[in-house]
Amino acid sequence: MKQKSIFFALAATFLSVICFAQTNQTVVENFKPSTVNQPGKQYPMVNSEGRVRVQLSAPEAHKVQLDIGGVKYDLVKNDKGVWTGESAPQDPGFHYYQLNIDGASVPDPGSLYFYGAGRWGSGIEIPAEDQDFYALKDVPHGLVSENLYFSKITGTWRRCFVYTPAGYQKDTETRYPVLYLQHGSFEDETGWSAQGRANLILDNLIAAKKAVPMIIVMDNGYAYKPQDNSETNAGTHPPSAFEEVMINEIIPMIDSRYRTIADREHRAIAGLSMGANQTMRIIMNNLDKFAYYGGFSGTSNYPSSDEIDPATFLNGKFNDGNAINRQIKVFWLGLGTKEPKPFPASVGAFRNMLEKQGIKYHFYQSPGTSHEWLTWRRDLNNFAPLLFK
Amino acid sequence: MKQKSIFFALAATFLSVICFAQTNQTVVENFKPSTVNQPGKQYPMVNSEGRVRVQLSAPEAHKVQLDIGGVKYDLVKNDKGVWTGESAPQDPGFHYYQLNIDGASVPDPGSLYFYGAGRWGSGIEIPAEDQDFYALKDVPHGLVSENLYFSKITGTWRRCFVYTPAGYQKDTETRYPVLYLQHGSFEDETGWSAQGRANLILDNLIAAKKAVPMIIVMDNGYAYKPQDNSETNAGTHPPSAFEEVMINEIIPMIDSRYRTIADREHRAIAGLSMGANQTMRIIMNNLDKFAYYGGFSGTSNYPSSDEIDPATFLNGKFNDGNAINRQIKVFWLGLGTKEPKPFPASVGAFRNMLEKQGIKYHFYQSPGTSHEWLTWRRDLNNFAPLLFK
Repeated sequence: MKQKSIFFALAATFLSVICFAQTNQTVVENFKPSTVNQPGKQYPMVNSEGRVRVQLSAPEAHKVQLDIGGVKYDLVKNDKGVWTGESAPQDPGFHYYQLNIDGASVPDPGSLYFYGAGRWGSGIEIPAEDQDFYALKDVPHGLVSENLYFSKITGTWRRCFVYTPAGYQKDTETRYPVLYLQHGSFEDETGWSAQGRANLILDNLIAAKKAVPMIIVMDNGYAYKPQDNSETNAGTHPPSAFEEVMINEIIPMIDSRYRTIADREHRAIAGLSMGANQTMRIIMNNLDKFAYYGGFSGTSNYPSSDEIDPATFLNGKFNDGNAINRQIKVFWLGLGTKEPKPFPASVGAFRNMLEKQGIKYHFYQSPGTSHEWLTWRRDLNNFAPLLFK
Repeated sequence: MKQKSIFFALAATFLSVICFAQTNQTVVENFKPSTVNQPGKQYPMVNSEGRVRVQLSAPEAHKVQLDIGGVKYDLVKNDKGVWTGESAPQDPGFHYYQLNIDGASVPDPGSLYFYGAGRWGSGIEIPAEDQDFYALKDVPHGLVSENLYFSKITGTWRRCFVYTPAGYQKDTETRYPVLYLQHGSFEDETGWSAQGRANLILDNLIAAKKAVPMIIVMDNGYAYKPQDNSETNAGTHPPSAFEEVMINEIIPMIDSRYRTIADREHRAIAGLSMGANQTMRIIMNNLDKFAYYGGFSGTSNYPSSDEIDPATFLNGKFNDGNAINRQIKVFWLGLGTKEPKPFPASVGAFRNMLEKQGIKYHFYQSPGTSHEWLTWRRDLNNFAPLLFK
């Protein structure tokens, strides 16, 4: 629930700006269907200001709202019972949203659906100036494959998606390094290849020879032992059994099913938000397994902004800065410039600790984006080129 | 639109039965969450009679309905603004459904979403007595991979899903036969692996040594040349350019990306409803490419029930029965016993023609199912074991 309240806090801070925009600007009438609409659907639409316009037939309803960025916008009904209305300008990139019909929160029947905020629901894409790096282009494309596996640790069937780069299928001799890439809280294993566009980002980077061909494994960060009550653990940071599942089940499964180079020098791990928190714990506890780390909008001291004592933090894993500099070839952190509390201060406290310990790291700031997917697409686009070189 | 009106006609024929059930039976209170609910969601639920119970918070609404099988069931609001209600018993298997809130048709926020009836929307699974054949079981699992490719014929990026059997990744020498498997009208390339469970059906068949390991290609049957107006063509039987895309683009792409055995003896083609219609045309026009055919709930004379003249039907392709018996190793048709008009009579007219021409064929009837996915799952389960032997 922490993550959710952060989203709402963020929304509240923007509210005054939004109200200003609504009263002082006219809406620019150049709306086009969203690029992530269902086939043949005209609505939702987006205009050049980044406003989202939705439309819904609900003849008997007395109130219909568009709920996006934590703000609810009233729609207006015409004489045919069709409701229409638009939001204030949204940040570029991908956003979750929903409709509210007489008090019921439901997906927009016009959009494609994505898993985030703890449910399958509507998503919309606001064109970004730099959208080319995650566009579907005329370059060789890798595959995203769905893998089912049984976890003895959790006692459940689990699923991961695996990106293999273009050429993997054809050239059956080559072996590849692997990036393990994790989603955030209230998201799942579908996020990075759907709204994250990880496959397209890597297709484009590899085609431009900016990144080396690599496998990417996108699993589900929620993993609980059978004796745990998953109801009470849901959403905790981190879920109780994920590290064990990653080390003892996912990595061996991937090394067995795919042509990997199965050593630490050819294994990276990264994640966003909760995933950044989880993967930092995993690499620090398993430096024999990974040599590269990416933390997108998160660190393991989350949500604290207090000064970190390396003698005690993560059981002293950051005590010996020189050893970490030798072992971790790339230590990478990213953050959007518009991210809400507590992310800037929490990541800031972590960076202070790194600097105090003399640990070398990269820090990337995504301009004008918040705790959302454009930040994380940019993170991946900047992080992946540094790997396995 | 033909397909849609058939669904409604079917629903209407059952209406009297349903009303009888509602007034003469009490609802059995053993509801359990549907197996295709979103994570953590309790509703929708299904009971042992096959009734679907839904629940939605909509405090301000004055009418909420469950819309399933073409019938709308009124829900009842409690003092907290939560609406609950259930349908009459449904056939076993998978059904699309939606909610109606004060006149707005929307997905149920509790279910997973599937593409069918021309939109992404809610689906529900009524347990079938024979559900074991499509269950996720402790057997070796194949992969389903998402392939992107650019079609020069349509001028668009297209997508197909490809099932590769367990062992395909590991044993990089073996080559495999291929089944091209098509969805029905108002469905897409996601249907066969999501609600169709084609991957699980084949995993189970192959593990039991009932079917030989094979690749399955699931593409999108809607394909139009740029000069065609796709708006006016949408839903026509068959879409204008699919045959050309299949022969000139999909098959070469699959033979290039996957380790196939690229000859007619190792290539099968099948489809359901519109896909049965399309694939029958494709095999009859391309007997040098395929040696196996499966038509699930459809034939190329659809929607006619008139006697077929083999001299003119499909340009006389069925004229020489002996030649067809030599060329097509398995000619297979399937139909549910509860399918609505015009399917039984249309398929019946086609069978009469086959018999008149002395063409050998298999005919399977799925007991107690209609023009829905349990019929097609059973079709695949009975058809696949006959292939490539």
